[in-house]
Amino acid sequence: MKRIALGIAYNGHAWQGWQTQPHGQTVQDCLELALSRFAAQPIGTVCAGRTDTGVHALNQVIHLDTPIERAQESWVRGTNAHLPPSVAVQWAREVDTAFHARFSAASRTYTYVILNARVRHPLWDGRVGWVHQMLDVAAMREAANALLGEHDFSSFRSSQCQAKSPVRLMHKVDVASHGQKIIVRLTANAFLHHMVRNIMGALVQVGQGREDEGYIARLLLARDRTLGAPTFSAHGLYLTEVDYPGYEFPRVSTEGFSLDSINFEDKL
Amino acid sequence: MKRIALGIAYNGHAWQGWQTQPHGQTVQDCLELALSRFAAQPIGTVCAGRTDTGVHALNQVIHLDTPIERAQESWVRGTNAHLPPSVAVQWAREVDTAFHARFSAASRTYTYVILNARVRHPLWDGRVGWVHQMLDVAAMREAANALLGEHDFSSFRSSQCQAKSPVRLMHKVDVASHGQKIIVRLTANAFLHHMVRNIMGALVQVGQGREDEGYIARLLLARDRTLGAPTFSAHGLYLTEVDYPGYEFPRVSTEGFSLDSINFEDKL
Repeated sequence: MKRIALGIAYNGHAWQGWQTQPHGQTVQDCLELALSRFAAQPIGTVCAGRTDTGVHALNQVIHLDTPIERAQESWVRGTNAHLPPSVAVQWAREVDTAFHARFSAASRTYTYVILNARVRHPLWDGRVGWVHQMLDVAAMREAANALLGEHDFSSFRSSQCQAKSPVRLMHKVDVASHGQKIIVRLTANAFLHHMVRNIMGALVQVGQGREDEGYIARLLLARDRTLGAPTFSAHGLYLTEVDYPGYEFPRVSTEGFSLDSINFEDKL
Repeated sequence: MKRIALGIAYNGHAWQGWQTQPHGQTVQDCLELALSRFAAQPIGTVCAGRTDTGVHALNQVIHLDTPIERAQESWVRGTNAHLPPSVAVQWAREVDTAFHARFSAASRTYTYVILNARVRHPLWDGRVGWVHQMLDVAAMREAANALLGEHDFSSFRSSQCQAKSPVRLMHKVDVASHGQKIIVRLTANAFLHHMVRNIMGALVQVGQGREDEGYIARLLLARDRTLGAPTFSAHGLYLTEVDYPGYEFPRVSTEGFSLDSINFEDKL
């Protein structure tokens, strides 16, 4: 048996999330069907991060075990031939059997893109979260710093979350403004269910001036989801990077994810 | 009566082009329906450039005449409330009755975005033309220079084109490479039916080395569409700018349309 790691990109807008469902339209079902057709035998997969309904991925990582021998490039092109336009394998690597897409991952990075503009943009529909009130990015950045380090994230955890512990270690937090886009990047060892979207909901409250810069810190201490802000739209959320120490996979340049194409001058 | 100019953005992927059709799914029909609902009376429109099936617009310009009085901002928000996610009014301006969206336009700019990468990208599906063979951008740029100036563009004109003359004046030609994207910008007084897509088809032939840098110049001289290259995909084509001397409308920063989000390192 060989173990193969694959990098997958998808537009989550048309999908009910990653994870397989009996009668669902999920990325995992779609990918496993394509892989099984390419390999001419059933293939199961394990992923790095089970993205939610509507969430995109630039570089989801999965692994699979198979007895068949194919060139790395064939896994990419052969599988893509069986995938719809909204999903594509980006790269393939043979890995040792100690590699595990979920358990070998030291961290995941999620990137949220807000379009902060007075008018919605048809060419970014489903791929940005649109906020028409102007947001105070400096206040959002200051508030977000409280997320750094190890915390009990119960206030940002969906009631349906099945994780054993609500404690996660946040490695990096970045809130940047690029023209009409606000890009929030969060890197943690792992994320709870709806954690990024709940954090975004709270950050937007700060950006709108409804809450002050201490809001995130207070929510962390409260450990109570009922005190938190509404879950923000999945539209602007991307799984952008998974870090595997000791493995060198092709990766998304997250710096490049700048959506510079939305540069209307704001003369309205 | 008042004359109002509107800037419209749309994702052309879901539409059978701009122009109204008896039983068609067209942007014009959809927009006129939304305007008529907002105004509570029938409203007709005239546009700057009748984009083809699948072609996008960042800044299509239209005008309409109406007896009703509304604030400029209301035309934007009120109409958008009746439009689907793939179409949105970006701005509104009251103009004098001498203004005509089609006849007052001194030039149109179309921008074509090629994703030149070994693997297709799900998050840009329908919005870039994908070419997996590496293209010689310098050769494409040299070939494209022949387009500058006044020419008979018969070799780049669809057999269904209804324009009286095949002569057009090309003001600007720009072929630029940004990572995995090749961006071709063409500004002319006007364009013939399929002209940009036929030019792109020919430029891709040059980029692939199937034709040399003199190919475009030879096609122009030949004035024969049957000698030309296949019409290239509409997916990467955007109407990005319309120039109206004497009018200052909000405009798309075409420089910003750089699609920097596709920055996979090319390690495959």
